Amino acid sequence: MISGKTTLIAHLGYPTEGFKAPMIYNPWFEQNGIDAVVMPMGVKADDYPGLLQSLFRLTNIRGALVTMPHKVTTTGLVDELTPTARIAGACNAILLRPDGTLLGDQFDGAGFTRGVERKGRSLKGARAFVLGSGGVGSAIAASLAAAGVAGLALFDTNTAAVEALADRLRKHYSQLVVTTGSNDPAGYDVLVNATPLGMNEGDPLPFDIDRISPGTFVGEVVMKSEYTPLLRAAKEKGCAVQVGTDMLFEMIPAYLEFFGFGTATPEQLRAVSQIKY
Amino acid sequence: MISGKTTLIAHLGYPTEGFKAPMIYNPWFEQNGIDAVVMPMGVKADDYPGLLQSLFRLTNIRGALVTMPHKVTTTGLVDELTPTARIAGACNAILLRPDGTLLGDQFDGAGFTRGVERKGRSLKGARAFVLGSGGVGSAIAASLAAAGVAGLALFDTNTAAVEALADRLRKHYSQLVVTTGSNDPAGYDVLVNATPLGMNEGDPLPFDIDRISPGTFVGEVVMKSEYTPLLRAAKEKGCAVQVGTDMLFEMIPAYLEFFGFGTATPEQLRAVSQIKY
Repeated sequence: MISGKTTLIAHLGYPTEGFKAPMIYNPWFEQNGIDAVVMPMGVKADDYPGLLQSLFRLTNIRGALVTMPHKVTTTGLVDELTPTARIAGACNAILLRPDGTLLGDQFDGAGFTRGVERKGRSLKGARAFVLGSGGVGSAIAASLAAAGVAGLALFDTNTAAVEALADRLRKHYSQLVVTTGSNDPAGYDVLVNATPLGMNEGDPLPFDIDRISPGTFVGEVVMKSEYTPLLRAAKEKGCAVQVGTDMLFEMIPAYLEFFGFGTATPEQLRAVSQIKY
Repeated sequence: MISGKTTLIAHLGYPTEGFKAPMIYNPWFEQNGIDAVVMPMGVKADDYPGLLQSLFRLTNIRGALVTMPHKVTTTGLVDELTPTARIAGACNAILLRPDGTLLGDQFDGAGFTRGVERKGRSLKGARAFVLGSGGVGSAIAASLAAAGVAGLALFDTNTAAVEALADRLRKHYSQLVVTTGSNDPAGYDVLVNATPLGMNEGDPLPFDIDRISPGTFVGEVVMKSEYTPLLRAAKEKGCAVQVGTDMLFEMIPAYLEFFGFGTATPEQLRAVSQIKY
């Protein structure tokens, strides 16, 4: 029940129609007596810097969830960035600190790596391949590096983005072997599709599935359907997989902690969610 | 259930703790399948103009409820004011029109006069006395004039406010007899307390109750308790009265229509309200 004492978490992006967070966070808050609400606010790129400045002057705001198209822009608009957000070059969470300054963080990647590790796969020393160096791909790469992978291969048709991400990773993780330039998925422990391929009917598979061995763990960020064509093909080969929504539900506990709302398990969040996958 | 398709009605003021609108509007919206939410946003005076500008660039906002301390400031920040808002010199509702311009209106006074008339008292040709020429008193005076009272007496210790209000009324309603300078409540058909007297224990009565006749209708804006000391004294004298919350519930249908959400009766709104009076 929203009242004059309710804390606001703004959900910033455009368009808003596909936002899922309100239907997960708000039931969780209600079930747990947390007097806060996630409110979608549609904001276009040109209006975003001004809005951010005004919004964080509100007396009852705690923070914001940030999504497309503002994840990158946000890195230049907050007072401080966590290392993960800096390497990812994108920010999907903003915390208003008691001194009025804004801290930007990034949980897309943490959602991915937490999910992999909760499935019993250690990332320490692993060789991982992240396809796609956009916001989510960069975030996953940053979190894989933080989780201790030994080698990280990156590929994106946007070579400038890939090389910039590789440079940031190498600078921060001097032991990490970062490679770029090949989209061959053979020989990795973990593969991630961080491109939109699989969103639309008739999309080609993001990887050449014939080059993947059964021992490879295959993760997906697309959450259009639970098992995308990539995941179905990988399962047929005997690979362990992670569906796109796992990343979503695994990252929410990290957000909750970030905003100071305690924590939750992904299972608890799935149970209370008003959108079912 | 808030989703990415939900329309935002911002509730702007400071402090927010005492806001009541969310607990009336939101249950009404939910019960009636209206995908909108009233969200309290605490905003201080200095931050208000900037916020207003940013907020109405959001793609899913329809309007705002405006309360203290912004009702007067708002008149200078919207593109157009209704006559009632212009005379009241205050604005408690903002509509974002399809062309991006902002229309300011004022429903405090309409809440009062709608309530009086629904109690069977015609205001046409009546003599009314409004004590207090702040935001709410000015709004009630404007709406009484619009309802066709013949005479309107105004009193406030802030004589500049009273005279300015009187001038605006006289300019707009040339037939209306507006008087100022006396706080004697004798000889009126309708009396209104539009001061905060009655909010705090031990406040003096706003009117000299001995000077009120049983035929006088006594209205109150204070909603601290249902029957304030003034209303109790007036009832003892045999006067018909209107409690402060009647004004609240009577004005909400006007807001709903303004925002394009259909309408409701005050009784329906009282029934669904999560705050009981």
